[in-house]
Amino acid sequence: MNDKILSISRRLRSTPFTRRVEAAGVKAYTVYNHMLLPTIFESVEDDYWHLCEHAQVWDVSCQRQIAVKGPDSQRLVQMMTPRDIRRAVPGQGLYAPLCAGNGGILNDPILIKISADHWWFSIADSDIKLWASGLASGYGLNVEIIEADIWPLAVQGPKAEELIVRVFGEEARDIRFFRSKMLDFRGRRMMVARSGYSKQGGFEIYLNDSDLAEPLWDELFEMGRDLNVKAGAPNLIERIESGLISYGNDITDEHNPFECGLDTYIDLDADIEALSLPTLRALVGKHANQLVGLSFDQPMEFHSSEVILGNRVIANISSQVWSPRFRKHLALAMVKRDYLASHSEVEINGQQGRITDLPFTHSATG
Amino acid sequence: MNDKILSISRRLRSTPFTRRVEAAGVKAYTVYNHMLLPTIFESVEDDYWHLCEHAQVWDVSCQRQIAVKGPDSQRLVQMMTPRDIRRAVPGQGLYAPLCAGNGGILNDPILIKISADHWWFSIADSDIKLWASGLASGYGLNVEIIEADIWPLAVQGPKAEELIVRVFGEEARDIRFFRSKMLDFRGRRMMVARSGYSKQGGFEIYLNDSDLAEPLWDELFEMGRDLNVKAGAPNLIERIESGLISYGNDITDEHNPFECGLDTYIDLDADIEALSLPTLRALVGKHANQLVGLSFDQPMEFHSSEVILGNRVIANISSQVWSPRFRKHLALAMVKRDYLASHSEVEINGQQGRITDLPFTHSATG
Repeated sequence: MNDKILSISRRLRSTPFTRRVEAAGVKAYTVYNHMLLPTIFESVEDDYWHLCEHAQVWDVSCQRQIAVKGPDSQRLVQMMTPRDIRRAVPGQGLYAPLCAGNGGILNDPILIKISADHWWFSIADSDIKLWASGLASGYGLNVEIIEADIWPLAVQGPKAEELIVRVFGEEARDIRFFRSKMLDFRGRRMMVARSGYSKQGGFEIYLNDSDLAEPLWDELFEMGRDLNVKAGAPNLIERIESGLISYGNDITDEHNPFECGLDTYIDLDADIEALSLPTLRALVGKHANQLVGLSFDQPMEFHSSEVILGNRVIANISSQVWSPRFRKHLALAMVKRDYLASHSEVEINGQQGRITDLPFTHSATG
Repeated sequence: MNDKILSISRRLRSTPFTRRVEAAGVKAYTVYNHMLLPTIFESVEDDYWHLCEHAQVWDVSCQRQIAVKGPDSQRLVQMMTPRDIRRAVPGQGLYAPLCAGNGGILNDPILIKISADHWWFSIADSDIKLWASGLASGYGLNVEIIEADIWPLAVQGPKAEELIVRVFGEEARDIRFFRSKMLDFRGRRMMVARSGYSKQGGFEIYLNDSDLAEPLWDELFEMGRDLNVKAGAPNLIERIESGLISYGNDITDEHNPFECGLDTYIDLDADIEALSLPTLRALVGKHANQLVGLSFDQPMEFHSSEVILGNRVIANISSQVWSPRFRKHLALAMVKRDYLASHSEVEINGQQGRITDLPFTHSATG
């Protein structure tokens, strides 16, 4: 396909940062949770190298915060995820797959505990508020569920910590991974977490006052001038090299956590009310597919996402990119486990692709 | 904003028609139900005039069909909509706003009755399957809910009937508005309805075998050569002139049916289990806003969707376009009812906009 224009309408919501994103020269968007998500500023590769060396500011407002408040909020949240949330502490983020009764993944948010009766799902691309609302209604739960006026802004890259400290103070430095602090910007307290959709390190600012969006953006650029700060976005090369899976791309509601390597984020033995647990317990060891990495020695053109051997689809490629760091073509693919049991490679277009665990490493891509 | 590229990934699902859409020279897409929806082939205006004069084939696969089957299916569907569905007959489509307990609109699908225990929601842009699934789980309903492998293809325009008759036979001619028949294409029976998102007349084919997508597309073009058939898409000019509202653009879950002029599609006095009915009954006459049309004598540039009078937002513009037919700039806007009670115009950028009912007509636009 050649490049196509995105027809922008109000339905594809802009964010409090969109004017600054446009002024920074955004070239491409995707749509995520009915909202504009920038994808490219210079080029995917230029943006990649910059992200790995400096600091970038990302408008990830599309990570909408679905807030669940009220006496039954913890119960509802626990029904939605097979991860045991009972030991979470306020301010902590938990990567928490949300699973339907049949075990299928409906979203893979970061779940943030604000307090015992107030939780946020920082969601991937599906209208999880609708599922939560349906459950709350049907089970008669005493909760309020809203999409909160919170606009996440990520600061990512090796110089991100320095930049965040300059804007939010030294307190930010000892925020641990997936933990947060309430910090001050222009007299407003907002959550700042050490997190983000890259492996280059960084923070996410949960802006809770849209009037401060442009002042915050501007101050990050002002204070970061000598750090070579630039506007950026979740980067296709970096996220695939890092093995970061993407809901809707690599995993869908047709997959269960076992297939996606998310076993470590679910608590099969916990005495919790998760709607998916009975099914997931019965599925242990029985899943048919496994998400793995593939690496090829030369740039590839995949004419189909399906990899066929004989008459059988043995793999489905979900994401792929040429890695300028590894000088390999990398792909994420859902592969039949019985094929994996006896093969370490897969052939596509006459090229051998090496099957590897995720994330990709120099040695694994060999 | 200048034109931006849409970054296409697997998460923005392609359709069984996408290869043909690309070959037909699509220039722009939007994203709808996580799926590509073509928007422009020649230009919005060229596409508009063609639609009003000939026949167009539209890939509207993104109108996903959420199928609800099983003994409790009618009960679940009725819980979701305040429109009384009890008199629907098999094959009939009903425009049925779906409303939450607070009266907010969660989607405005065409509800299609397949049989007493099998219903389809032909949905607008929200993951209504998640709401249905949550309700079914919480209320313990015996239903199966799936996104069906159905790929709607619309044929719209004044020559659409002739084209449909050539491909599906004379039987198609007496399908009434919002009714359907099961008709044959290459030995496969599929639903063909007289419906579609334009006021130019036309049909929607509910293709139920993706392998027939390209043969169906090709046959429509082959048989329609002398009808000047072209690839098209829901057209911004045509839909605004026609006053067709768009979920996510003109109405959202923050609006109730009264504000959107959808009173006629709800049955306040019916003895039905709709979750929204108690709230909607209490809201009668109390809604604060009303969706209306605005028309201006010259092309407008709106710098904000908000229209402010004094210190108060009196209107929110949700969609707008220059109409080459009326030679007016037309907008849809949610306007405060107390303002409407004493005004027939609204001033924006020093220009007077005339307030009109929908759809726009030559006489109303002056």
